[in-house]
Amino acid sequence: MFVKHGMSQLTSLSSARNCTLSSSAVLRRQHFLIRSLGGGVHSNFCTQNRMQETKPLEADAENILRAITPTLDPTRHKGQAGKIAVIGGCREYTGAPYFAAISALKIGADLSHVFCTKDAAPVIKSYSPELIVHPILEESYSIGDGDKKYISGKVVAEVDKWMERFDCLVVGPGLGRDPFLLDCVSEIIKQARQSNVPIVLDGRLVQKVLNCEVNDQDAQGQLLSLSRRIGGVTILRKGKSDLITDGEIVKSVSIYGSPRRCGGQGDILSGSVAVFLSWARQYILAAEGNVTLRPTNPTVLGCIAGSALLRKAASLAFENRKRSTLTGDIIEYLGRSLEDICPAY
Amino acid sequence: MFVKHGMSQLTSLSSARNCTLSSSAVLRRQHFLIRSLGGGVHSNFCTQNRMQETKPLEADAENILRAITPTLDPTRHKGQAGKIAVIGGCREYTGAPYFAAISALKIGADLSHVFCTKDAAPVIKSYSPELIVHPILEESYSIGDGDKKYISGKVVAEVDKWMERFDCLVVGPGLGRDPFLLDCVSEIIKQARQSNVPIVLDGRLVQKVLNCEVNDQDAQGQLLSLSRRIGGVTILRKGKSDLITDGEIVKSVSIYGSPRRCGGQGDILSGSVAVFLSWARQYILAAEGNVTLRPTNPTVLGCIAGSALLRKAASLAFENRKRSTLTGDIIEYLGRSLEDICPAY
Repeated sequence: MFVKHGMSQLTSLSSARNCTLSSSAVLRRQHFLIRSLGGGVHSNFCTQNRMQETKPLEADAENILRAITPTLDPTRHKGQAGKIAVIGGCREYTGAPYFAAISALKIGADLSHVFCTKDAAPVIKSYSPELIVHPILEESYSIGDGDKKYISGKVVAEVDKWMERFDCLVVGPGLGRDPFLLDCVSEIIKQARQSNVPIVLDGRLVQKVLNCEVNDQDAQGQLLSLSRRIGGVTILRKGKSDLITDGEIVKSVSIYGSPRRCGGQGDILSGSVAVFLSWARQYILAAEGNVTLRPTNPTVLGCIAGSALLRKAASLAFENRKRSTLTGDIIEYLGRSLEDICPAY
Repeated sequence: MFVKHGMSQLTSLSSARNCTLSSSAVLRRQHFLIRSLGGGVHSNFCTQNRMQETKPLEADAENILRAITPTLDPTRHKGQAGKIAVIGGCREYTGAPYFAAISALKIGADLSHVFCTKDAAPVIKSYSPELIVHPILEESYSIGDGDKKYISGKVVAEVDKWMERFDCLVVGPGLGRDPFLLDCVSEIIKQARQSNVPIVLDGRLVQKVLNCEVNDQDAQGQLLSLSRRIGGVTILRKGKSDLITDGEIVKSVSIYGSPRRCGGQGDILSGSVAVFLSWARQYILAAEGNVTLRPTNPTVLGCIAGSALLRKAASLAFENRKRSTLTGDIIEYLGRSLEDICPAY
């Protein structure tokens, strides 16, 4: 999703799943998200807001991807092709932030940061020397109750120091459920929005808020309605066809794809959308009002491009690896997929 | 082995080895296993229960593998092709749980978890970002005597929170011999059986219980007898030919194979059997009583498929790597082996 607040944008990636709210941990997450999205989410909206079913228009994904991808120019400096940060990674989860951050680099971003907990940092660093990994976040178990306010302030200030350098923030891959950590991240989201840094919010965080099944028949109307209720946040819903809406239009991406459903593909998507939406914003800015590309919302364009690229990489990886395709294999095909659609020269 | 208790199943993978009971650590293991298997194992059964030698029937392994492997369908969601958990990994052993868990993914499972000790977790995580590794188990050295009951309860509850999400549990790879850890795992096995989650039990845990040599002449009768005495647990005994029995029938798998005996191949087998038995259960359920495949026990089918696939992958790896074949090389051939026998499309 992308919520527009001033210049800031927020995207959410969600998957076609049933949602249940059964535990206090899940409730904590729900509250975290409602805070982060600025309120206004009704947990029973799905049953109350079914809209008439119409088939969403297939996006011209390859053309969009070609249009927004910047030309490679030897005079450009490090950073100009994208500086991405992933907020995620805790004692339990380390793979997800790695997948998101490395995917951003493999598509062409110049710098990819990860802000994670102290426990997660050495592991994420060990996956790849290409990433800049900051061991900054804290979980409840490692701090006393009396220190929480002080440490929370320190964590948020530490991330904020970097904030203006980033073109996009990916929030959520491997964040886990620790309430203190989620409180800190909620503050980080606020800071990012104040600094007008676009945010991609992980679907696993958002789907709990829906408290219902987004079914295939109603998906388009349900997503439109949800997007409107949370202030025009752009939503990308993964499925057999991916659906993208900003509350105004709904587009689908059905090209390519793979039948393999190994965990971690959503993290590739987060990292990819972060890069493409940064590029789409630059493209729109550079066009100075003369944009012929449709749709014109850079967030929707970024989601369409990210969706198409993941689907192509997944299809190439599957062609090669078949049932044994893992998320790491798909990442290895991001570069070739981009080159096939949009050659570097 | 698979013990059927209600709907639950328990499999044990053992190798053709001499067994000795020389130390208290080994005795602890024996007691752990007797508890886990529900008692009834007599350490002198081997000498008392020799049965008439007959040659076991070779299983139609490739056809079984093809029948139980689900078709790849783009409408399916993450998790439907299998969610596996490995309980194992301690300060001393980290390779074994990794081999089991990554093998499950390479065959086509969607999600693969590892529940290990806090020390083992960062190492296992660093082997691959594809695994979800939970640093939950505890060893004696890290806890005071007074805390044992409390921590044991916490560990078991922590694993139990996840239990219903898993299609199969693999218990044993890299568990070590710590008595406190084994007590906790014994409780986890009980919980899994209450939740009707099938369990694959590592052979290294089980072979000590036999307290005798399973010799090649008597193997078939000995295994049949052992399986019956522990309530119909399915046993897979690795050897020149692999033998599989559920106390009713004995099947052998002799196709393919490699002369290389590098450590860790049993862990590939555990992870593979976990996936195949989950698929075999789904296959049997979907057939609604119209199963034409023989045998009909899904556990036996899973063992036959797992045995055949490991033997094929090992033979391909050996063809390529000869004496330098390692377990990681064999894992890299799991995908191609499966594709050779059962093409994705």
